[in-house]
Amino acid sequence: MLIIGENISVTSKIVGDSIRNKDAGPIIKMAKAQKEAGAHYVDVNIGPATKNGEELMQWVVQTIQREVDVPLALDTKNTSAVEAGLSVHKGTAMINSVTGDQSKLDILMPMTKKYKAKIVGIALSEKGVPPDIDSRIEIIMNIVNSAMENGVPLSDVYLDPIVLPVAVLQQQVFNCIEGLKAFKQLKDLMDLPEEPKTIVGLSNVSQSSPPELKSLINRTYLTILMSHGLDCAIMDPLDKELMNAVKTFDILTNRILYAHSYLD
Amino acid sequence: MLIIGENISVTSKIVGDSIRNKDAGPIIKMAKAQKEAGAHYVDVNIGPATKNGEELMQWVVQTIQREVDVPLALDTKNTSAVEAGLSVHKGTAMINSVTGDQSKLDILMPMTKKYKAKIVGIALSEKGVPPDIDSRIEIIMNIVNSAMENGVPLSDVYLDPIVLPVAVLQQQVFNCIEGLKAFKQLKDLMDLPEEPKTIVGLSNVSQSSPPELKSLINRTYLTILMSHGLDCAIMDPLDKELMNAVKTFDILTNRILYAHSYLD
Repeated sequence: MLIIGENISVTSKIVGDSIRNKDAGPIIKMAKAQKEAGAHYVDVNIGPATKNGEELMQWVVQTIQREVDVPLALDTKNTSAVEAGLSVHKGTAMINSVTGDQSKLDILMPMTKKYKAKIVGIALSEKGVPPDIDSRIEIIMNIVNSAMENGVPLSDVYLDPIVLPVAVLQQQVFNCIEGLKAFKQLKDLMDLPEEPKTIVGLSNVSQSSPPELKSLINRTYLTILMSHGLDCAIMDPLDKELMNAVKTFDILTNRILYAHSYLD
Repeated sequence: MLIIGENISVTSKIVGDSIRNKDAGPIIKMAKAQKEAGAHYVDVNIGPATKNGEELMQWVVQTIQREVDVPLALDTKNTSAVEAGLSVHKGTAMINSVTGDQSKLDILMPMTKKYKAKIVGIALSEKGVPPDIDSRIEIIMNIVNSAMENGVPLSDVYLDPIVLPVAVLQQQVFNCIEGLKAFKQLKDLMDLPEEPKTIVGLSNVSQSSPPELKSLINRTYLTILMSHGLDCAIMDPLDKELMNAVKTFDILTNRILYAHSYLD
């Protein structure tokens, strides 16, 4: 499973300050730590970035990649900032994310194709989180169609059924599992060459839960989702117990060879 | 999910001594502790019990049930001892277990019917663990047929795909997951009124693994199996992290209502 480190986000004060003040140290350190802990990608969430977004994203991408050999997931609603980031990114970048909004799809899918990037398609409409699984599937089918029309290989598209906080919207947490299973079945429904890939933003599930429950909720949910074929998670690779759950899952499903030392 | 406490087993020295010496204290204490920790059933494994098996099983059943209000899973290869236990058991007992061996099925299925018990059917033949999933399915179909011929309701039969140690037989650990999924599909294949119930003896999976890995392996495997519809596990209810995984699974799949205090 592809692991995307979530820790470089403007929602954190350290990162926010670091980006605002062009203080490279903290974000380089965070990128390095996440890669060393096992992240395959590092997400860079620079927020809406309405002002100087292009320059900001380029600074972040170049600052990290000058010091750490890791591909990045470019995370902002500002599509010009995304393209600016892609134009200086080394390796295969990921765009995080596009919703079912057609005007955004018309910008981001050609961009994905142009830069040979990966893209996260999320089951959100302009109106927000769809109330039921069928509406999520409808949005996702539109995203898959847009990818195909723009010549983006299906293997570069990651579909997100939307994780919501179990403390607030418990039914939606179950719906997300069902959504994931349904997305996998689009292979038959849409006559696709392969099962679509799936992704979640894991930590949302434990938002609003007490701190001492978060890791337990996150790793249990991840194990459930992996059991249903999850391909990728945006998560905290510095949560050792979470990473241990991933490794143990890989052992128990025969993806990596067992050794007594498999956690090391 | 139905939880069967595994701790009263002659393979443990304390239990072995307790049963041999008719020393009631330790086994009552263990039954009480497991029930309090959340076990719905308590397994009593008295071993092969070739000598005085009937009397031994009756003593164990009556000793526990005199002090603790809990149903028991009667665990011995001695079928006369099983029947002796059933004849004095209060509530719905479970017979653990019957293999695909026809001569055993011909004794234990009528006994299950007579005492309105539950029974565990395990995917083992006289030759041992079947090498592939198809052979396991064949054995299990024979067990289901035997239940139906003897008028045992399908809802009282728990099918066991056999958990083996990941440290020794990693491929078989994966096969067990596939077996579980296949058993669920017998509903369509055999035109059954409902999906058959499934059960595992969980702790086997971490046998031969280092002590510090056992709980992690057990709870990750249990979460995977629950994700695929596992109905019952013979396990250690005193492993708090394992029980927390079960509770968290129930929360995330919307089976019990979320509260910040759901672990208490």
